[in-house]
Amino acid sequence: MSTAGQVIRCKAAVAWESGKPLSIEEVEVAPPQKNEVRIKILFTSLCHTDVYFWDAKGQNPMFPRILGHEAGGIVESVGEGMTDLKPGDHVLPIFTGECKECAHCLSEESNMCNLLRINTDRGEMIHDGKSRFSVNGKPIYHFLGTSTFSEYTVVHVGQVAKINPDAPLDKVCVLSCGMSTGFGATVNVAKPKKGQSVAIFGLGAVGLAAAEGARVSGASRIIGVDLNPCRFEQAKKFGVTEFVNPKDHNKPVQEVIAEMTGGGVDRSVECTGSIQAMISAFECVHDGWGVAVLVGVPNKDDAFKTHPVNLLNERTLKGTFFGNYKPRTDIPAVVEKYMNKELELDKFITHSVPFSEINKAFELMLAGEGLRCVIRMDA
Amino acid sequence: MSTAGQVIRCKAAVAWESGKPLSIEEVEVAPPQKNEVRIKILFTSLCHTDVYFWDAKGQNPMFPRILGHEAGGIVESVGEGMTDLKPGDHVLPIFTGECKECAHCLSEESNMCNLLRINTDRGEMIHDGKSRFSVNGKPIYHFLGTSTFSEYTVVHVGQVAKINPDAPLDKVCVLSCGMSTGFGATVNVAKPKKGQSVAIFGLGAVGLAAAEGARVSGASRIIGVDLNPCRFEQAKKFGVTEFVNPKDHNKPVQEVIAEMTGGGVDRSVECTGSIQAMISAFECVHDGWGVAVLVGVPNKDDAFKTHPVNLLNERTLKGTFFGNYKPRTDIPAVVEKYMNKELELDKFITHSVPFSEINKAFELMLAGEGLRCVIRMDA
Ligand SMILES: NC(=O)c1ccc[n+]([C@@H]2O[C@H](COP(=O)([O-])OP(=O)(O)OC[C@H]3O[C@@H](n4cnc5c(N)ncnc54)[C@H](O)[C@@H]3O)[C@@H](O)[C@H]2O)c1
Ligand SMILES: NC(=O)c1ccc[n+]([C@@H]2O[C@H](COP(=O)([O-])OP(=O)(O)OC[C@H]3O[C@@H](n4cnc5c(N)ncnc54)[C@H](O)[C@@H]3O)[C@@H](O)[C@H]2O)c1
Ligand SMILES: [Zn+2]
Ligand SMILES: [Zn+2]
Ligand SMILES: [Zn+2]
Ligand SMILES: [Zn+2]
Repeated sequence: MSTAGQVIRCKAAVAWESGKPLSIEEVEVAPPQKNEVRIKILFTSLCHTDVYFWDAKGQNPMFPRILGHEAGGIVESVGEGMTDLKPGDHVLPIFTGECKECAHCLSEESNMCNLLRINTDRGEMIHDGKSRFSVNGKPIYHFLGTSTFSEYTVVHVGQVAKINPDAPLDKVCVLSCGMSTGFGATVNVAKPKKGQSVAIFGLGAVGLAAAEGARVSGASRIIGVDLNPCRFEQAKKFGVTEFVNPKDHNKPVQEVIAEMTGGGVDRSVECTGSIQAMISAFECVHDGWGVAVLVGVPNKDDAFKTHPVNLLNERTLKGTFFGNYKPRTDIPAVVEKYMNKELELDKFITHSVPFSEINKAFELMLAGEGLRCVIRMDA
Repeated sequence: MSTAGQVIRCKAAVAWESGKPLSIEEVEVAPPQKNEVRIKILFTSLCHTDVYFWDAKGQNPMFPRILGHEAGGIVESVGEGMTDLKPGDHVLPIFTGECKECAHCLSEESNMCNLLRINTDRGEMIHDGKSRFSVNGKPIYHFLGTSTFSEYTVVHVGQVAKINPDAPLDKVCVLSCGMSTGFGATVNVAKPKKGQSVAIFGLGAVGLAAAEGARVSGASRIIGVDLNPCRFEQAKKFGVTEFVNPKDHNKPVQEVIAEMTGGGVDRSVECTGSIQAMISAFECVHDGWGVAVLVGVPNKDDAFKTHPVNLLNERTLKGTFFGNYKPRTDIPAVVEKYMNKELELDKFITHSVPFSEINKAFELMLAGEGLRCVIRMDA
């Protein structure tokens, strides 16, 4: 019997309060409205951004809320007038969207859609300003327009990438956010040429995805930089060939790297969120041709500061959001890269838990263990 | 009778002391050594950099010195083993060189040659650490390896662009420095697409050359920004369509420009040397795709400062040196652009004086009058 047009009752992990374990509840999920789809989530993984907004320190607290934004699923039903997607399509919901009509979507260079750009403060659907989730009639806030910690969720079509149905959703779900962000930062923005050297600042999941981009690009040297020496062992699996811990040196790490490389690396990608790492990542690239790319999300009051001569000496500084990928247009091709074995994803997935144990995924991340924990919704 | 291999006695304008009028002297110009050429200068023009080093405020004072670096001439004789140039070749000496062998010269992206990169503190030839100029046996310092305020000068082959002999040297001499710097900053680095908007900060000769680059690229709007309202009238001839004087507004000029353009210009080029203008030029470009290019030479203690979110929102910040042109490889083609009437130069040449009146050129520049004053050596 079709559930289209009906309210679906299903399980979701609800964050009732900041920092408190999620509780699995029976929620009601309203049918999708105009330009929306309802998706049956099969796998979802945990990203730092979920933890930040669950923790809600320095963030606008919005509770109760259904978190989650890295996931893979199957379209259950579609709202009015939908032509792009149909029930049965395999999809990845994405935390930032692509309306295909605004100046950003029409520009080849930008993925910062005016309508559907990431909005961490929005808790309802754009169409009517209402939530599609409720528990006993009480509305529950959405998160990033995705809220994937639920067996069913409602997402704007602009935030849905339709992918190859043969792709294993338990693997490609991690392309919804962190892996695409790091990988794209290298291959779409830093664009190292074959044989060039690349420094990666921060060897978390995003930085290792950036290293994977460097490996795929044929970088000759991949220099990993992290304050945490435990990150180094794991990074070797991602093609990182040399390690620098800024704490091991008396001089700024950019000088250490310049000495290691005869003047600087060809490319650098910063994946830490630390302003000091951002400045070092810029200043460690070679003059004449070096390109530095910033990925990490800084604090509100940070200032990026450098001597302008570092720029005049023909260095390039760029930032990127979601690896410069347009979610609907580009992500299906990234999934194909995985299918063709050009891009490895399995090594990012270090843990897996059933939905009933979702709080374990939070514990692992808070303990800094592993890279991605995939949550199995049907288990 | 050939002068090759002989010392040439000729006239040169010698700066004996900082800030004092140049004096035309009879100098002796030694023959070119290995990898050097001796050039008969026909036309030279005055650039701010000559005035800075003549004034020598905040610079390492080196006197007596023969200044001058924008010029056109003809090769008189060549040093040992020279294959690239021969007597009679029409050339532009350039203040920065291209050895064609170092990592920068071999990179497609850089023009910052390790061997011959601009060096304002060097007063002798690289080959033997000696000057080729003397007055009554007393050596006179070279300037930028060019010292074009002399009827004859000796230059390293790496600093010589061989150009079309049909090109009028009294016009194309200005391509030795400022015009190529500004024009190249736009066409090689900012690279506006047809129909895009461009903001130019600083409407001096370099900024107007950047505007000429925007005009040639088919920019739809060229917004000129200058603190000096007198610059505006002249700028119209260079395709500048709108003017903003930061002093006319209570809010930062980047906000004014964002309002004028629905979020920011597509490209900006800073040609002021003011750190505040550099920051504004960066922050006034559109998120998602905006590119800002810094050209102006800052003060030693300046710091470029911005919130990193301005970068993460997918803006690009670059600096450029000599418009990213490689002097020997690229400048001959810029001369061709002038010959094909793709690039206008005549409008930059607002004054002309005989060599005997070279100090008038300094007076004009100090008074802020005109753009380029061409000095005729044979007059
Ligand atoms: N731009 C985007 O679209 C986007 C998307 C996802 C994540 N991010 C950001 O990317 C960054 C990395 O995410 P992650 O999940 O990999 O984080 P993570 O915490 O797992 O990894 C960050 C690493 O950086 C290291 N580090 C911190 N300060 C450092 C410094 N000064 N020098 C060297 N290393 C330093 C830490 O030790 C850690 O290993 C975060 O800022 C995150 O918010 C951005
Ligand atoms: N990178 C290179 O290769 C290269 C080569 C030549 C010149 N330059 C540099 O380019 C710059 C421009 O040279 P120029 O000869 O055109 O100089 P100029 O003095 O003729 O023009 C500079 C203009 O900038 C304006 N200005 C100053 N501060 C400003 C501000 N805060 N906002 C807006 N306008 C401001 C001035 O009013 C002036 O009109 C200089 O810094 C020069 O050193 C660089
Ligand atoms: Zn859009
Ligand atoms: Zn994420
Ligand atoms: Zn070189
Ligand atoms: Zn100059």
